[in-house]
Amino acid sequence: MSSIKHIAITGGTHGNELTGVHLLKHWRNNPEEICRDGLVTELHLANPKANGCNRRYLDQDLNRQFSWADLSDHSLCGYEQNRAKSLNTLLGPKDAPRVDFIIDLHTTTANMGTTLVIKSDDALVVGMAFYIKQQMPEVTLFYEPEDRLGDNFLISLAKHHGLLVEVGPVPQGMLRWDVFDKTRQATRLGLDYLAAVRAGNQPELPASMPGFQFVEKLKLPENERGELSAMIHPDRQDTDYQPIQPGDPLFITLEGETLNYEGTETLYGAFINEAAYYDQHIGLSLMRKIEIRLPG
Amino acid sequence: MSSIKHIAITGGTHGNELTGVHLLKHWRNNPEEICRDGLVTELHLANPKANGCNRRYLDQDLNRQFSWADLSDHSLCGYEQNRAKSLNTLLGPKDAPRVDFIIDLHTTTANMGTTLVIKSDDALVVGMAFYIKQQMPEVTLFYEPEDRLGDNFLISLAKHHGLLVEVGPVPQGMLRWDVFDKTRQATRLGLDYLAAVRAGNQPELPASMPGFQFVEKLKLPENERGELSAMIHPDRQDTDYQPIQPGDPLFITLEGETLNYEGTETLYGAFINEAAYYDQHIGLSLMRKIEIRLPG
Repeated sequence: MSSIKHIAITGGTHGNELTGVHLLKHWRNNPEEICRDGLVTELHLANPKANGCNRRYLDQDLNRQFSWADLSDHSLCGYEQNRAKSLNTLLGPKDAPRVDFIIDLHTTTANMGTTLVIKSDDALVVGMAFYIKQQMPEVTLFYEPEDRLGDNFLISLAKHHGLLVEVGPVPQGMLRWDVFDKTRQATRLGLDYLAAVRAGNQPELPASMPGFQFVEKLKLPENERGELSAMIHPDRQDTDYQPIQPGDPLFITLEGETLNYEGTETLYGAFINEAAYYDQHIGLSLMRKIEIRLPG
Repeated sequence: MSSIKHIAITGGTHGNELTGVHLLKHWRNNPEEICRDGLVTELHLANPKANGCNRRYLDQDLNRQFSWADLSDHSLCGYEQNRAKSLNTLLGPKDAPRVDFIIDLHTTTANMGTTLVIKSDDALVVGMAFYIKQQMPEVTLFYEPEDRLGDNFLISLAKHHGLLVEVGPVPQGMLRWDVFDKTRQATRLGLDYLAAVRAGNQPELPASMPGFQFVEKLKLPENERGELSAMIHPDRQDTDYQPIQPGDPLFITLEGETLNYEGTETLYGAFINEAAYYDQHIGLSLMRKIEIRLPG
């Protein structure tokens, strides 16, 4: 993997997630912080227009527009669908990418701490996540591998895929120092890892580490008019990555009635009460606790 | 004050503060919860279009458009400036209002708990706030009285002014049960108070209660290009209504340098890191601890 050279750090992929936006500004003024021997690191504000409007997106969620099929479909011409094609030209093209690795910076309103979203079984992706968690044991690994060409996330543009850094809780349109600092730490460690690999000093990593595999998203209850009729139960609020057992309270109606989890398997919550998912009335993701193996 | 009869409860004055929006829906389905003998209570979604877009406002902050001068200025024709004139017709007119009292429901991203914003020395306004705090001792009274005709808040449309219920922390575009429930409790108590006064059973209230008087807003530091160069210091985050002493850490730059409070008087913070104020780069409000007197 000595060919790794071109790295992109992207922020503001969701325009109202200000942490990445301001980290890019910080690094533009302090480039020595992200310089690593042998690596060329670029900084890109992924959705400047949505950021200017302090909105997640204008027309579509940008971070769902990068599947090879959609990038090739020129009838998809909303603002973010065009922006995705432009980023594909800048960082890709996806089928023969110029950029080797992308670190994309996100925040969440959920109490997920520092989460690394692994969307690939590429050794470099899993290795980076393991390396960061070695140095920052509080990190959670969120595992949802997909075929790179099929994946619709921005990070899938790069040759080795990439890593999505997701830190919370922080409201949209706001900065919190703790979130800013954790995001900065994780990103710096990611670059350290790539530089070590590039230099032939692959860090020693465990064969596996614990994490959570995405199972499914659960919708918030709706009334007959399709309006929200319930919200996250207070027992679930802020309990990301804690177990949800059959019969546990899950939602509470506007009238105060508790609705229980009807599944038969103990699973774990993530993105619990993520504000960005209210447009689709999604209340949380269910995750399964797993051991993630480092690809050989 | 036996003439009190027409009450308006307003929500969604800021379109992305969902708690009030969903409380209105809940009460439309459960009107008995807000029925009180002798009172006629109306429910109004104040800015439906901004709520539909999940934005605080489209053109201007609606809750700054209700001064008599601005309501009379027909050259002010942005979306919210027109909506304010429409609400003035519906609830006012401000110089001879149809509605006696308005309870306006808001949320904040700051850790302000249940705050009652008192913008008037009207005995009914201060009395209602005292009554609610009697029943909910955790409530904080935020005192910033203004002349009713000059005040630019929606609540100033009503004959006796009104009370703004401000509950947090909760991100914009999201519901939390704890915030929803506190807002509901405070509003129900407010209606209980008005019904008691209407019936001639004025509740016994203390002559004064502790609160905080608004002093000034502090801007977040900016660089020479007018961009944010610092954020709220972690020592101040979530410390609303706690003392800020001369020399205390106030902000932290993107580079990690602490900037201290340069004032000479110990004051108290409120709206610390309110996301809605980032458009003006306002970091917090400074408050002075006071005793609020019940008007005779």
